[in-house]
Amino acid sequence: MTEGKFVYFFGDGKAEGRADMKNLLGGKGANLAEMTNLGVPVPAGFTISTEVCTAYYENNKKYPKGLWQQIEENINKIEQVMGAEFGDPDNPLLVSVRSGARISMPGMMDTVLNLGLNDQTVQGLIKQSGSERFSYDSYRRFVQMYSNVVLGIKGEEFEKLLKKKKASRGVKKDTGLDAAALKEVVAEYKALVKDETGQDFPDDPKQQLDKAIGAVFESWNTERAIQYRKINNIPGHWGTAVNVQSMVFGNLGDDSGTGVAFTRDPATGERVFFGEYLLNAQGEDVVAGIRTPHPINKAQKKGNSHLSSLEEEMPEVYQELESIYQRLEQHYADMQDIEFTIQKGKLYLLQTRTGKRTAASAIKIAVDMVNEGLIDKHTAILRVEPQQLDQLLHPTIDPEAKLDIIAKGLPASPGAAVGQVVFTAEHAVKEAERDKKVILVRTETSPEDIAGMHAAKGILTSRGGMTSHAAVVARGMGKCCVAGCGAISVDEAAKKFTVGNVTVSEGDYITLNGSTGEVILGKAQLVEPELSDDFATLMSWVDEVRTLKVRTNADTPEDSQVAIGFGAEGIGLCRTEHMFFGEDRLPTVRRMIMANNKEERLIALKGLLPMQKGDFKEIFKVMKDLPVTIRLLDPPLHEFLPKKEDLDKDPGLSAEDKKTILKKAASLHEVNPMLGHRGCRLGITYPEIYEMQVQAIFEAACELAQEGYTIIPEVMIPLVGHIEELRFTKKSAVKVAEEVMQRCGVNLEYQIGTMIEVPRAALTADEIATEAEFFSFGTNDLTQMTFGFSRDDAGVFLPAYVEKGILPDDPFISIDQNGVGQLVEMAVKKGRASRPNLKFGICGEHGGDPKSVEFCHRIGLTYVSCSPYRVPIARLAAAHAVLKEN
Amino acid sequence: MTEGKFVYFFGDGKAEGRADMKNLLGGKGANLAEMTNLGVPVPAGFTISTEVCTAYYENNKKYPKGLWQQIEENINKIEQVMGAEFGDPDNPLLVSVRSGARISMPGMMDTVLNLGLNDQTVQGLIKQSGSERFSYDSYRRFVQMYSNVVLGIKGEEFEKLLKKKKASRGVKKDTGLDAAALKEVVAEYKALVKDETGQDFPDDPKQQLDKAIGAVFESWNTERAIQYRKINNIPGHWGTAVNVQSMVFGNLGDDSGTGVAFTRDPATGERVFFGEYLLNAQGEDVVAGIRTPHPINKAQKKGNSHLSSLEEEMPEVYQELESIYQRLEQHYADMQDIEFTIQKGKLYLLQTRTGKRTAASAIKIAVDMVNEGLIDKHTAILRVEPQQLDQLLHPTIDPEAKLDIIAKGLPASPGAAVGQVVFTAEHAVKEAERDKKVILVRTETSPEDIAGMHAAKGILTSRGGMTSHAAVVARGMGKCCVAGCGAISVDEAAKKFTVGNVTVSEGDYITLNGSTGEVILGKAQLVEPELSDDFATLMSWVDEVRTLKVRTNADTPEDSQVAIGFGAEGIGLCRTEHMFFGEDRLPTVRRMIMANNKEERLIALKGLLPMQKGDFKEIFKVMKDLPVTIRLLDPPLHEFLPKKEDLDKDPGLSAEDKKTILKKAASLHEVNPMLGHRGCRLGITYPEIYEMQVQAIFEAACELAQEGYTIIPEVMIPLVGHIEELRFTKKSAVKVAEEVMQRCGVNLEYQIGTMIEVPRAALTADEIATEAEFFSFGTNDLTQMTFGFSRDDAGVFLPAYVEKGILPDDPFISIDQNGVGQLVEMAVKKGRASRPNLKFGICGEHGGDPKSVEFCHRIGLTYVSCSPYRVPIARLAAAHAVLKEN
Repeated sequence: MTEGKFVYFFGDGKAEGRADMKNLLGGKGANLAEMTNLGVPVPAGFTISTEVCTAYYENNKKYPKGLWQQIEENINKIEQVMGAEFGDPDNPLLVSVRSGARISMPGMMDTVLNLGLNDQTVQGLIKQSGSERFSYDSYRRFVQMYSNVVLGIKGEEFEKLLKKKKASRGVKKDTGLDAAALKEVVAEYKALVKDETGQDFPDDPKQQLDKAIGAVFESWNTERAIQYRKINNIPGHWGTAVNVQSMVFGNLGDDSGTGVAFTRDPATGERVFFGEYLLNAQGEDVVAGIRTPHPINKAQKKGNSHLSSLEEEMPEVYQELESIYQRLEQHYADMQDIEFTIQKGKLYLLQTRTGKRTAASAIKIAVDMVNEGLIDKHTAILRVEPQQLDQLLHPTIDPEAKLDIIAKGLPASPGAAVGQVVFTAEHAVKEAERDKKVILVRTETSPEDIAGMHAAKGILTSRGGMTSHAAVVARGMGKCCVAGCGAISVDEAAKKFTVGNVTVSEGDYITLNGSTGEVILGKAQLVEPELSDDFATLMSWVDEVRTLKVRTNADTPEDSQVAIGFGAEGIGLCRTEHMFFGEDRLPTVRRMIMANNKEERLIALKGLLPMQKGDFKEIFKVMKDLPVTIRLLDPPLHEFLPKKEDLDKDPGLSAEDKKTILKKAASLHEVNPMLGHRGCRLGITYPEIYEMQVQAIFEAACELAQEGYTIIPEVMIPLVGHIEELRFTKKSAVKVAEEVMQRCGVNLEYQIGTMIEVPRAALTADEIATEAEFFSFGTNDLTQMTFGFSRDDAGVFLPAYVEKGILPDDPFISIDQNGVGQLVEMAVKKGRASRPNLKFGICGEHGGDPKSVEFCHRIGLTYVSCSPYRVPIARLAAAHAVLKEN
Repeated sequence: MTEGKFVYFFGDGKAEGRADMKNLLGGKGANLAEMTNLGVPVPAGFTISTEVCTAYYENNKKYPKGLWQQIEENINKIEQVMGAEFGDPDNPLLVSVRSGARISMPGMMDTVLNLGLNDQTVQGLIKQSGSERFSYDSYRRFVQMYSNVVLGIKGEEFEKLLKKKKASRGVKKDTGLDAAALKEVVAEYKALVKDETGQDFPDDPKQQLDKAIGAVFESWNTERAIQYRKINNIPGHWGTAVNVQSMVFGNLGDDSGTGVAFTRDPATGERVFFGEYLLNAQGEDVVAGIRTPHPINKAQKKGNSHLSSLEEEMPEVYQELESIYQRLEQHYADMQDIEFTIQKGKLYLLQTRTGKRTAASAIKIAVDMVNEGLIDKHTAILRVEPQQLDQLLHPTIDPEAKLDIIAKGLPASPGAAVGQVVFTAEHAVKEAERDKKVILVRTETSPEDIAGMHAAKGILTSRGGMTSHAAVVARGMGKCCVAGCGAISVDEAAKKFTVGNVTVSEGDYITLNGSTGEVILGKAQLVEPELSDDFATLMSWVDEVRTLKVRTNADTPEDSQVAIGFGAEGIGLCRTEHMFFGEDRLPTVRRMIMANNKEERLIALKGLLPMQKGDFKEIFKVMKDLPVTIRLLDPPLHEFLPKKEDLDKDPGLSAEDKKTILKKAASLHEVNPMLGHRGCRLGITYPEIYEMQVQAIFEAACELAQEGYTIIPEVMIPLVGHIEELRFTKKSAVKVAEEVMQRCGVNLEYQIGTMIEVPRAALTADEIATEAEFFSFGTNDLTQMTFGFSRDDAGVFLPAYVEKGILPDDPFISIDQNGVGQLVEMAVKKGRASRPNLKFGICGEHGGDPKSVEFCHRIGLTYVSCSPYRVPIARLAAAHAVLKEN
C-alpha cells in the first residue's frame, strides 16, 4: 500500500463509512459511522482503516506514506465540528484512541483516554469544567494510561506512587486526594517516566496521538491477542482499525449529565423507554453505585418519586433522546442498549448496541416486534437463545405454600428443588440411581463433586459466594443452588447440618429456593412454571420451521406428562432399570440376581413381569399414539445389590443371608464396571431377563391396543458393539413379541433397534443396520469410550483440561464434534447406506444442548431426545439450526 | 441342467478328472482322480459332480435325467477293474459312498461303507475273507450306518439292540460276540427298520446305492452343515460331489494288510520313509492300539527288532510303495501322509495328503526341499506356520540341573517357568505389574482367571485334564502349564499347597516343566532354546522377503538382549512404570505420590532421576544403534500405593502414617481406573513427572553419546486423545530435551510421538500427526475402548461370546479387523496425509499374533513390536504377508 484513503471521518451527521464496512473499519468504526449517518449526534472522530494495520506490519512497522497528512486533515475536521482545538490552552480538544477489529475482542487491546492533555491544556479543562480536582485527576489518569499503553511502563509503578501520596496525606481513598495533591502526582508520574525511559513525557498532543496510534497497532500482536485469536479462529491478517474520537464530559456542570437506557424493558420486554441518568456526572458514576441514579422518565418513577427524571429536568434533551431511540430501534430492528452524555446541554450518543435481556423479555420483544412488523418470524426465532429458556422452565415454590424457612443463603442458581439431604457426591450419585431425589449439602464443593451435583436436584453450600464453584457449576447445569449459607453448620462426618437449634440429618427432606436463597425444612409444594402466551406463539413458529423431531427421556408417567406439556413428540429413552429400584421391586430384583441357576432366576423374573407390565402400561397411556422407545436392562447387576453398610442396618437378614449377599456382590465386583458385564452382554448371558422385559412391553401394548390405544413400541438393545450381539438379542425379542401378539390376537407395528454408544458400533454401523430398525446414539457412553474418559473419574482432570485450553468445552455437556461427532456422522452415513429408511435419534444428555442439537440437525438425525425440561430448548435449537443453514 | 456329463470315472491308471477340477468334483474326487492319473493304484470308483447336487436342489430334489444311466455305466467300469460284481453272491463288489465338497467340511456330512451287502452277498464276503465273524460284523455295521444316514433312524436304537445281545451272551465287548450272534443282530436290526419305517430294509444293491447318493445330497443342507458354512463363509450354491468307490480289505488273510506312512519323519523332518503297518488287519486296527503296529522298513526297526517290517515281509509291495511315495512327494512337492491297504497281495493307496509335522520338522523339511530343488525359498517360508514357532522358542530346564521334583501332573502346555507362588488371579496381576515372576496355582481355573493366567509365567492346577480350561487357555497363550496334578492339595484360603509332607506357601519359588508335567521346588536354572541352523537359514530367507520391521516390547536389559538374539530391530515399547516397582524405587515413588504440593513432589522426583537414568543407560547400551521407544508413565498413581493388608504387615509405619497412606489411596480411588487419571492426563496435571523422565532419557542418551554410542531415543506420550494433550506434553518434553542436550554439548537425533490407543486419537489422527513424529498403536487399550470391554472384567462374558459364535476370536488375541482394525487403518491414512514420513508401529500384544501381523503389513505399518519370544513369529508372519499378497 503506497497511497490511498486511510482515514474515514464521522461527525455532524455525516460519515464516510457505513455499517457494512466492518472489514475495513472494524466493528466499532463501522457502527460509529452508521450512527452518524442516521443523524444521531455522536462525538466527532475518525477511523484509521484495518488496511493501515496490515500495511504497518508489512512495512516494517512504519505508517504508510500520506497517513499522517490524512490524520491531520481529520483532526481539523473534528476541531471544526466540536468547536475545540487540539492543544488549545483555553478550550482544548481531547480525544480517545481505541482499537476496533472486525470482531470484538473484549479486553484484548488497549485504549487511551483524555489524549491531548498537558500542563497548558489542563488549564483549559479546568476552565471548561470548573473543577480543578476533576481536571488534574483526568490528567493523572491520562499520564498513567498513556505511559502504560504507549511507553510500556507497568501500571503498578504508578499505583505505588499514588498509594504513597495517599499515605502522606493521611487519606485512604483516591477521592480523598485534592487538586493540589493530584497535581503533585502528575509531576511525580512524569518524573517516573523520565526515569524509566530516559525521556520526557511527551507534551505535544500530536506527538501523543502519533505514538498512541502506533501502540494500538502494536497491541494487535501481543502474546495475549495472538492466543485469543488462535482460540477464536480469527486470522492475524485481518488487523485492527484505530478510532480517534473527541472526548465529551457529562460533568461540566448541571447542564451536563450522563446515562444509560434500553429501548424496551430488559427484564419484562415491555415496550417502554427504560433508563437511568445522573446530572453532572461521568459514566462510571452511574454504574459505581455511589450516587443513586435517577429514572429517565416520569413513567419509571414509581417508588422513587422524589428523584427527578430527565424528562422533567431537561425536557428538550429527553425529547431528542426519545426520537433517537426510536430511530435506532427502527434502524437496527432490535432492542438497543444506549449510552449517552450531555455536555453543556448538548446530547451525544456514545454507543448503541443490542441490549441484553432476560428470557421472558427476549420472547416478548421478539413476538411484539413481529406484531409491529419490525421483524419476521424467522428473525424472531433467532432472537431467543435456546439455552436462555432454561430460566423459564424450572419449577418454583407454590406461592400459597406455608414455608418453614430455616436459613437464607445466596440465590446462586434459580429454580426450586425438594429432596432428601445427602452429604457426599458419591452418595448423591448412588441415591439418584435409585431414583431418589436428593439435595447435596456440602461446606463447599470441588471438582470431585461434579457427578454428585449432576445427580442431585439441588445444591446447598455453607461457604462461597456467587462465583464459588458450587454457584458457577450449578448455573451451568441449570440446577437450583443456594450457596454461602453461613447460618448452617455442616458436619459431613456425622451426616447432619445444624442451623440454630434445628438439626437436619441425612435422609431428611428440605426444599431450596435458588431464586431467593431460602432453605426450607420439609417438602414444599412446587408448581410447574407458567409459560406466557408469547412463549406459546414463539414455539408455534419454531415448530413450523424445524425439521428435527424432539422426544424426551422419561421413565415415569409423571415425567412423560411434563414432557408432553413441553411439546415432546415421543419418548426417545425409557430406562427400565429405574423401575427396578422401586422399594416394592428391589427384593424381587435381588432374588433374581442371587439366583443360583436359570430356574431360580425364572421364578424371580416371573414376579417382576406384572410390575414391569404395569409400568409400561402407565407410560403408554400417557404417551397415547406417540412412539415410546424402551431400553432393555443396561446397568451391571451389582448396582442392585445393597452395600455392606446398608446390609448391617437391615434387621430382617440373618448373618448367613448377609454373608451370601456379600459373597455374590464380591463375585459381581468389577474393576471397570463401565466396560463390564452390562447392556446386551447381560441379555446374552441371561437371555431370560430380556425375554421377561419384552414380554412385559408387548403384553402392556396388546392389552392397551384392545382398549383402543395405538401403541408403537420400540425396543432398544443397549451396548451393542457387534452385529452378532444384536442378531442374538433381536431374534429372541422378536420371538417373544410374536408369541405375545399371537396369544393376544393383536398385530402391532413395532421396531427393534439399538443404542449406538460403543465406538465399534459406529464403525460397523453398516453391518448393524442390517438388523437394527433404528439407531439411538447414546452419546454419554460414546463420549466416555471415544475419549477414554470415565465420567465418574474425569472430575479430577477435566476442569484442568478446560482451564488449560486443552479442551474447548466439557465434552459431556456439548458434543465433541471432531471426535465423537465424527463417529456419529459416520454411523449415520453407513447406517443409511445399508438401510435407507433407518431412523436416527440421540438420547445422551447432549440431546438438550443447543450446540449439539444444531449438530444433530446438520448431520441428518431424525430426532433428539432430552430431559422433559429441556424439550423447548431442543425445539428452539432445532429451529435455529434450520435458519442458520440458509 | 437337462443332460450332460454327470459322472467322472477313476481307476486302473486313468481318471476323467484332475486335481484342478475341485469346483466340479470336490476336493476328495479331484484328488482321487489326480492320484489315479499319476499311476498310483487307487481302488476304482467314480465321482458325481457338484453340479448334480445343485441341479438336485433346483429340480425339487430329483436327479437330473440321464444320471442313473451314467451311474450304471460307471458301476460296470468298476466291476471290470476290480474283478468283482455288484450283488454277486460269490465275489461281490462293495462300495463306499462319501460326500466331498470344494472345501473339506470335516464331520459335517455323512458316509456309508460296505454298500452292496445283503444276505446273499455276505456269503461271498465270507468266502473272500474266510471269516464269517468279520463278514457279519461288516454287514451289521452297514445296516446300522445305512439306516442312520439314509433312513434317518437314530444310531442309539441300534446300540440298544447290540447291548442287549451282549448281555444275553454274557460278554462285555463287541468283540465278544461271535458270528452267530452278529448274524442275529443283523436280523434284529432289519426288524427294527421295518418297525420304524414300515418297509423292509432294501436288499437290492442298486436301490441301496440310489438312496445313499440322495442322502449325501440331503446332508448338504442339514442345520449343522448350513451353520458350518455360515461360520466359514462357504456359499450354499457350491453343493457337494458324491464319491462312490470300491471297498478294499486288508484283512482278507496274511497276503493282506494295511498301514499309514509319512514320506519324511514328521517329528524331526529327517528324509526317511516312515510308517507303520499290520498284516491281516483293517485300518482301525493300526490306530486302535490293540495290536502293536510293525515298522514299515528295516531302517525303522531299531528297538523293535523282533517285529518284522513290510520291507521284509512283502518286499515287492514295499518296493512299489517306495516308488509311489517318491512319485507323490515329487508331484505334490511336500511331505505326504499316505494310507494304504494290501488286498490279497495287491497294493491300494486310499489317501494321500499333506502331512502334519512339528515346528522343527516343518523347518527342516522346508529348508531341505529348497536344497533338493523341490521348492523355492518363498514356498519354503510359507510351509512353516508362524504360530508353530512358539513350540521352539520357550526356555527349558537346564538338563544338568539337579531338581527337587515334588509332583508330576499332565504336561499341558510346553516350556518351563520359574516363579513365586500365588493363589488368585488378582494377586497374579498385581505382582506381575510389579515385575514379579509368579506361578498361578489353582484347584482349577475358570474364565475369571484369564487376566491372572496372562500375568503369570506358568500355571499349575490340581484338577482337570489336557482339555481342561487351564490347559486349553495356557496353550493358546503359549504359556507353560502343568494341569491335573492330583498329588498336590491346594488351600487357596490359607494361601498354600501341600504335597506329601512338603508345604509351599505364597511367595515361595517353584519351577514348572510344562513339557513333562514336573513340579519342582525352588528356582531351577532355565536355558534358552537352542535353534537349529535350518531355523537360521529359514529366518534369513524370511528377512529377505519381509518389508515390515519387527521390534520388541522390553523394559529390562535382559529382555532386550533376548529380543536382539531373536532378531528384534529395536524396542517398540519400553514401559517405564515397571521400573518404578523395583524394591529400591517404590519408597521414593510413594513419596512422590504422597507429596502435598509440587515442591515435595519435585524432591521425590529428584531422587528417582538417577535411578531412571541408570535404567535407560543399561537398555540403550544393549540396543546400541537400534531405536528405543520409551513410553512415559502410564498407569494411575494408586497402583503404586500399598493395599491395606500390606500396610498392616509393615512394622516400620506408624498408625498415623498408615492412616495418611490409606486416605491418599482413598482419594485416588477410581470407579473405572482404565478410563481415569492416567497416561498423559498425569503428565498434564503433574508436568514435573514427565519432565523428570525426559531428563533421565536424555541425560542417559547424552552420556552414552559422549562414550561413542549412537542413541536414537523416541519419547512416546501415552493415552493422547486430543491434539492439545500432545501439544502440551510435547512442548515441555522438547524443552527439557533441548536443555539437557545443550548442557551436555551433544546433539541427538530424537523423535517425540504418541500412542494411538484412544478411539478419538485414531479419529483425529490427521490433527495429531501435525505434532507426532510417530504413531504406535496401543491395540490393547484401543480394543478395550472400541468394544467397551474391560479386559479385567470381560472374562465373565467373553468366553460365552466366542462359544456362541458372537465373536469369531478373542479380540485381545487377534485384532478385530472390522472394528479396531478399521480405526487403525483410518489413523494410518489420516496420519500419512498430514505427515507423509510419519512412522507407524503397533505395540499391543497383537504385534506377536500372526493374523494381526499380516493385517499390519497390509495396511502399511512400519513395524510391529512384540514380546521377545514372539519376535521370530512376527518376522515369519511378516514374510507370509508379503508372499500372500502376490
